Amino acid sequence: MAKIQLIAGSSHPHLAKEIAKLLKVSLTPIEHVRFANDNLFCRIETSIRGDDVFILQTSVRPVNDGVMELLLMIDAAKYASAGRITAVLPYYPYVRSDKKDQPRIPVTARLIADMLQTAGADRVVTLDLHALQILSFFRIPADQLLSVKLLCEHLRSKIESNHTVIVSPDVGGLPRARFYAKNLNLPLAVMDKRRDKQSQKVKMGVIIGEVKGKHAIVVDDEVNTATTLLETVEALKTQGVRKVSAMCIHPAFSKDAQKKIEQSFLDEMIVTNSIPIEEASKKIKVLSIAPLLAKAIENIHHGQSVSTLFE
Amino acid sequence: MAKIQLIAGSSHPHLAKEIAKLLKVSLTPIEHVRFANDNLFCRIETSIRGDDVFILQTSVRPVNDGVMELLLMIDAAKYASAGRITAVLPYYPYVRSDKKDQPRIPVTARLIADMLQTAGADRVVTLDLHALQILSFFRIPADQLLSVKLLCEHLRSKIESNHTVIVSPDVGGLPRARFYAKNLNLPLAVMDKRRDKQSQKVKMGVIIGEVKGKHAIVVDDEVNTATTLLETVEALKTQGVRKVSAMCIHPAFSKDAQKKIEQSFLDEMIVTNSIPIEEASKKIKVLSIAPLLAKAIENIHHGQSVSTLFE
Amino acid sequence: MAKIQLIAGSSHPHLAKEIAKLLKVSLTPIEHVRFANDNLFCRIETSIRGDDVFILQTSVRPVNDGVMELLLMIDAAKYASAGRITAVLPYYPYVRSDKKDQPRIPVTARLIADMLQTAGADRVVTLDLHALQILSFFRIPADQLLSVKLLCEHLRSKIESNHTVIVSPDVGGLPRARFYAKNLNLPLAVMDKRRDKQSQKVKMGVIIGEVKGKHAIVVDDEVNTATTLLETVEALKTQGVRKVSAMCIHPAFSKDAQKKIEQSFLDEMIVTNSIPIEEASKKIKVLSIAPLLAKAIENIHHGQSVSTLFE
Amino acid sequence: MAKIQLIAGSSHPHLAKEIAKLLKVSLTPIEHVRFANDNLFCRIETSIRGDDVFILQTSVRPVNDGVMELLLMIDAAKYASAGRITAVLPYYPYVRSDKKDQPRIPVTARLIADMLQTAGADRVVTLDLHALQILSFFRIPADQLLSVKLLCEHLRSKIESNHTVIVSPDVGGLPRARFYAKNLNLPLAVMDKRRDKQSQKVKMGVIIGEVKGKHAIVVDDEVNTATTLLETVEALKTQGVRKVSAMCIHPAFSKDAQKKIEQSFLDEMIVTNSIPIEEASKKIKVLSIAPLLAKAIENIHHGQSVSTLFE
Amino acid sequence: MAKIQLIAGSSHPHLAKEIAKLLKVSLTPIEHVRFANDNLFCRIETSIRGDDVFILQTSVRPVNDGVMELLLMIDAAKYASAGRITAVLPYYPYVRSDKKDQPRIPVTARLIADMLQTAGADRVVTLDLHALQILSFFRIPADQLLSVKLLCEHLRSKIESNHTVIVSPDVGGLPRARFYAKNLNLPLAVMDKRRDKQSQKVKMGVIIGEVKGKHAIVVDDEVNTATTLLETVEALKTQGVRKVSAMCIHPAFSKDAQKKIEQSFLDEMIVTNSIPIEEASKKIKVLSIAPLLAKAIENIHHGQSVSTLFE
Amino acid sequence: MAKIQLIAGSSHPHLAKEIAKLLKVSLTPIEHVRFANDNLFCRIETSIRGDDVFILQTSVRPVNDGVMELLLMIDAAKYASAGRITAVLPYYPYVRSDKKDQPRIPVTARLIADMLQTAGADRVVTLDLHALQILSFFRIPADQLLSVKLLCEHLRSKIESNHTVIVSPDVGGLPRARFYAKNLNLPLAVMDKRRDKQSQKVKMGVIIGEVKGKHAIVVDDEVNTATTLLETVEALKTQGVRKVSAMCIHPAFSKDAQKKIEQSFLDEMIVTNSIPIEEASKKIKVLSIAPLLAKAIENIHHGQSVSTLFE
Repeated sequence: MAKIQLIAGSSHPHLAKEIAKLLKVSLTPIEHVRFANDNLFCRIETSIRGDDVFILQTSVRPVNDGVMELLLMIDAAKYASAGRITAVLPYYPYVRSDKKDQPRIPVTARLIADMLQTAGADRVVTLDLHALQILSFFRIPADQLLSVKLLCEHLRSKIESNHTVIVSPDVGGLPRARFYAKNLNLPLAVMDKRRDKQSQKVKMGVIIGEVKGKHAIVVDDEVNTATTLLETVEALKTQGVRKVSAMCIHPAFSKDAQKKIEQSFLDEMIVTNSIPIEEASKKIKVLSIAPLLAKAIENIHHGQSVSTLFE
Repeated sequence: MAKIQLIAGSSHPHLAKEIAKLLKVSLTPIEHVRFANDNLFCRIETSIRGDDVFILQTSVRPVNDGVMELLLMIDAAKYASAGRITAVLPYYPYVRSDKKDQPRIPVTARLIADMLQTAGADRVVTLDLHALQILSFFRIPADQLLSVKLLCEHLRSKIESNHTVIVSPDVGGLPRARFYAKNLNLPLAVMDKRRDKQSQKVKMGVIIGEVKGKHAIVVDDEVNTATTLLETVEALKTQGVRKVSAMCIHPAFSKDAQKKIEQSFLDEMIVTNSIPIEEASKKIKVLSIAPLLAKAIENIHHGQSVSTLFE
Repeated sequence: MAKIQLIAGSSHPHLAKEIAKLLKVSLTPIEHVRFANDNLFCRIETSIRGDDVFILQTSVRPVNDGVMELLLMIDAAKYASAGRITAVLPYYPYVRSDKKDQPRIPVTARLIADMLQTAGADRVVTLDLHALQILSFFRIPADQLLSVKLLCEHLRSKIESNHTVIVSPDVGGLPRARFYAKNLNLPLAVMDKRRDKQSQKVKMGVIIGEVKGKHAIVVDDEVNTATTLLETVEALKTQGVRKVSAMCIHPAFSKDAQKKIEQSFLDEMIVTNSIPIEEASKKIKVLSIAPLLAKAIENIHHGQSVSTLFE
Repeated sequence: MAKIQLIAGSSHPHLAKEIAKLLKVSLTPIEHVRFANDNLFCRIETSIRGDDVFILQTSVRPVNDGVMELLLMIDAAKYASAGRITAVLPYYPYVRSDKKDQPRIPVTARLIADMLQTAGADRVVTLDLHALQILSFFRIPADQLLSVKLLCEHLRSKIESNHTVIVSPDVGGLPRARFYAKNLNLPLAVMDKRRDKQSQKVKMGVIIGEVKGKHAIVVDDEVNTATTLLETVEALKTQGVRKVSAMCIHPAFSKDAQKKIEQSFLDEMIVTNSIPIEEASKKIKVLSIAPLLAKAIENIHHGQSVSTLFE
Repeated sequence: MAKIQLIAGSSHPHLAKEIAKLLKVSLTPIEHVRFANDNLFCRIETSIRGDDVFILQTSVRPVNDGVMELLLMIDAAKYASAGRITAVLPYYPYVRSDKKDQPRIPVTARLIADMLQTAGADRVVTLDLHALQILSFFRIPADQLLSVKLLCEHLRSKIESNHTVIVSPDVGGLPRARFYAKNLNLPLAVMDKRRDKQSQKVKMGVIIGEVKGKHAIVVDDEVNTATTLLETVEALKTQGVRKVSAMCIHPAFSKDAQKKIEQSFLDEMIVTNSIPIEEASKKIKVLSIAPLLAKAIENIHHGQSVSTLFE
Repeated sequence: MAKIQLIAGSSHPHLAKEIAKLLKVSLTPIEHVRFANDNLFCRIETSIRGDDVFILQTSVRPVNDGVMELLLMIDAAKYASAGRITAVLPYYPYVRSDKKDQPRIPVTARLIADMLQTAGADRVVTLDLHALQILSFFRIPADQLLSVKLLCEHLRSKIESNHTVIVSPDVGGLPRARFYAKNLNLPLAVMDKRRDKQSQKVKMGVIIGEVKGKHAIVVDDEVNTATTLLETVEALKTQGVRKVSAMCIHPAFSKDAQKKIEQSFLDEMIVTNSIPIEEASKKIKVLSIAPLLAKAIENIHHGQSVSTLFE
């Protein structure tokens, strides 16, 4: 019967090894090359004919090198007669570019979906997308894994139900915040931040909902510059919260973000390792998604349900 | 040069005539037939070779007859050598079925997109979609027109800024509510309604945000059974609002909805005629989107920007 | 190994159960919903990953609801990672709309084929199509089962070869009638019915071929309003036939058709249960295609020939 | 504005010239080459960028060279940036192979349709197809021109209505025969020919319908070996007809067919020049379809209806 | 498990039998027919549902009949529900037409690739293509087998390294010649032949590189008219070579080529049986590729590497 | 009528301006953004509905950012309803990765072709591709412009025919070298460089052909590290050439390449500005392709031949 072949891009070698270990397979040998002319190249070093190929790539800087490397691996696997190719994308590239909210702009999350299929992917596994509709940009089966169980279980024991509130840093994130709030049986609040029409300056965010004296847990799908997160923390402090935690699934930290977090009033932050981060600090707790991804790969390989893993 | 051909499905003849009049064209003659075996059929009764064909169909009951009639018209136009086929869909069919939020369900809004393209549509014009990502389900140019200007202009004069609040009936609708709130420079609130974990009964909705003593304007993209809307009205009254209005773009009223609205505490309701409604009552004010659609068709025909129409 | 999953649309539950029983499988649990807004929805309630999925839907009123429900089931199964999806369509929707015999009309039987493929069907099984070319509208393997053996075997013993004639009610059906005539080794006749050029009224049909004093068996692929059938019966009586039987594969009866048949000179009628009919009357004999469909599903599942089932 | 470019395959230079003359255009210069290795090649010798290209090829022996030459011309025109490519196919290749009436055979008429589209045709014009469904094998606009007017007008004056009958040489051709019969207001008959079940020999054909003492006009879409035609003639003579004419649209004569016809009891035969034939004999009258094709090309070029040309 | 089904076109029955014998399978029974109207037809005479189908066709005269027969077999196999279809093409049709080196010409090698996929091929196996880029004309896995080992092993013992040189008959063939030269560890030379600008006559070829007194081995991928080959031989003799051999993979001899070779100064020629040739002469040695093809089919069937067969 | 819209990627602003000036158009305003998360974004700032859009991007470092930016621009233009999108690619990305010459590698030049089409390009213009077959990786019209005229005209006056030779630095480049040699009416030579089988070290290159005492002009399509070029220069010096020039179309210089050239024995080098280079040195002469590209864009826009520009 067709074997699992787990091929790793160069984005997150540690996660790849962790998954391979859990699956009790060796990583499929692949050579990644960057030529002197900045062209990427790869060569799968063993036959994968007819096998069940999983290609792991998460989106890290430099982002476009990661996208191209992913497409090259899929192309190589397809014409090497892979039996089935599943792209495993813990942090989906260009995930925030998911709608045409201005005229004459690209919708890059959809373009990525198109390109994965053009290159030859037969299915896709993602983790906590910015918008669920991205799954339907594909014309191939696409799964979204959720880290909600992983994150909430970590937190549950530390929460006093009557004194805690889930906060979304913006209105678009409220459905996700509500999903966590339901899971933890907590109330909700949301920050609304606007530009002043005259000055065009952003006015300080307003917290909609009751937060005074409470432990606020800010929930977001990713953190990048941490600006919005820390503005939310600031607004919450102003509103008299007792303590602020944050749960951000994808730690897509830009340059100074980690330092800014360390120096902020934020008490603690929980993230997954969907993106590799430098030595986690005291404030930032990293939970591994490797067991979730490994189980998903195993279930897909054996034709078993994936939705049961996080329901 | 290619002419505008405006072909109307049988869903909304009044709107079709209104648009045709504004465009100063005659509706393209088409015969719609339902055979004794319940099969639909149509015949375009004049040559449309090379012409710029716009096919107007909004989603009304029976919904699936409307979808099939639309596909039949596109198929007939395509093989009749239309120059370009634009499907004009004021109320997009199955618009709420836009994501796979449970395992093993269809995403029908995306399936509709696929079928329109398979049948032969070259472009699509929609109005106020439930989620903007639906545009990116298409691989053909797709426009979304917005009725925000139309609705807000109607309301603006009646609003006292300091005593009015925009309310979203659920967390998913908050970005739309915020869009209206920004346009009218008003604050926001949102209703959160949950099932009790033990009893599985829906608890009464909680209003997040300040509404006491204010004029609340509930904003939603569509109204169907009106249950959620009227629950929101109820919760707002409980919270001591002074008055409640509603702006719901698509009046997709199910059987008793209009009656329930008439009998409720809701003071007034503004809708568009994206869906034909029976004689509007005193409470329900209908604003016509025909000028917006006519202008969009004209601009598309002449290769001019559509986004300028509602920016 | 991949299992058979037999999923039933809501068109013909009795046939579905009959086939499931013959296959010794349980029907795959699926929930069919019609929302208050007339939108259909379905949810497959058990994992079908990698399985060999057969979706049964026959075309009954309301026809377009049936088509959409079929497409929704296929869509749900595809993105639920079905191994292979076979649409089993005993009475193919819009089967008579198979050619563009006027300008600017749809060819809906072909559009249905396109949509089945767009939704995700991998293969199709049909029964006695109006025209064999419909199979070639598909770009996926498509089988046509024939009920000729079932029907002829039922009749064979009752026929006196020298005094019986097969009659087609129109010229287009003559090849089918001839196919039955060859099977039963009987001569042929055909009715030709024309409009009077001046009056535009249909003149009574003329029987071409010898029928006087014989037992005439009218063969048609479907019966709908029964108008043509009963005109044929009338014309045959006028020509002095001794007795008239009818074999019509698909009993797509419209409202009063069964009553008109009961009251007519037609002696007996044989149909299949490709479409569910109300309590069969004394005149109308219903033969079950469930064994044929069950055997076809079994053979497809095991990679065995289907053509051998009716050759 | 884009010009008509009329490109001729090597199948029927005379027809190409005739059409070009009627259109008042020069044939687009093209070089057709057969290399020493039997590979075909062509080179369009003038720029056709953006032009409205019509490629004329009828199916003559050697049939497969004609098909490949056609595909090569389309390929060359596509990548030479033709504005639109219309394949004009008076006698469609493999037209009789239009259905899968045995297991495991090709449906070559559909394969041809697929290949024309793959090569780059944007539309297709055909003449009197064997089955109308072939048009729906295409996913591009496809027209069928009919020669019925041309043929019937030639015949009309020579017919005594009360003493003439239209005869189809087989049951499959009866709808076409009926179409001609309606046009000429004449009755119908049909030949049925069967194999003896024991001996497997073909028994002589039986004429169904009244022909005695009449002038019979056999109508068929094409004549190849002329075997069926001459068997029909024979059967009609046996039944006592007074005179037999034949109208066969496509003169696809195989080797001895013309000689056999000359020596037969057939009085006269009318064909079109959809296929070039050697010097027409006394019995065989050739009517030119060039005016019909030229008018169709003109109308397509100017975006006017084609169906009006033969209705 | 799915079986190997080896289906042979009519191009090279001897090779088909040889491969079948090596694979220890019977050739799948297929009937090839040429109708009186020059249309080809085939019927696969046994069920191949779900099987692993290999269709063998090499390009021989008449070339276009071979291409169409190949497409018909693929079409028949596809709609007969083959599990997988691999086209095995020892001599790829139109292999030399692989680039658009003049305006407005077809690139037929790419068109062939498109048509194979349109007809339904799932993968392709070729042997020694004129240009490796042809593999990338396909969007399905495509293998190129190489006969270099077979040919070089035959020759190795006969070569005196210090007195032998590999010669390419033209600059385009030099990479192939170099590939052989590296394999045999020999130096290189190449012939350059130009037209005189004034007279437009081809001047005699010039040999670039040292050949005097040596044994020259001309390497080419195919031989057709043998004109270039014999010009090269002539030029080499003029330059004082001691002896000339030739290795030409595909013996696509046109009419008099073999005779011309016999009468030339060429000492010996080695070819494969990728194309059937008449009784090999004393000078022409034919090596069989059947073992290579059989092993490739076996490995593909069992999901094993093909590249190992000739590395 | 549709206007030319010339949209420039950020790869080569100088060339874009030069072309715009020659075309007498303004560059279409576009904003290019790199977000803090390293995601690229662009917004076309004016309506391009129905216009004839040309998107200029050449491949420079960082290569993958350039590819993604190109795809984003195409995506934005497509859904902004561009009339036609032509990608103008002076130096095609990944041009050297044009064949699968090892198992299990990507063919990235073909993948790029696929992605351009998936994103929405309608046609492509390239300049001097590494292999002409790349044009046939596309299923849209693709032009290759040649700089041969530009380069040769610059050189012609400086050449003494009898004492000059064109040299290819490797066997694969010989056809290009020959093309230049024919244009300048000069003889040919080629360098062959091999690895020693035992030591695996590259042995010094051998010059095949006569070069002693001559002026050698090395011709290559691109120069990157300049290693091969300078090895060729070295080998030529060793063989006693009098002087060495080089013509390399695409100056894809890697870091130290320009410095190494300056310090080498190479007398002079001619390149185009298909890639921007830092201040050209005394040895390196840059010729502008802007006039060629501008003329090609103009001709494409007006439906005129492009091949005439360089024949």
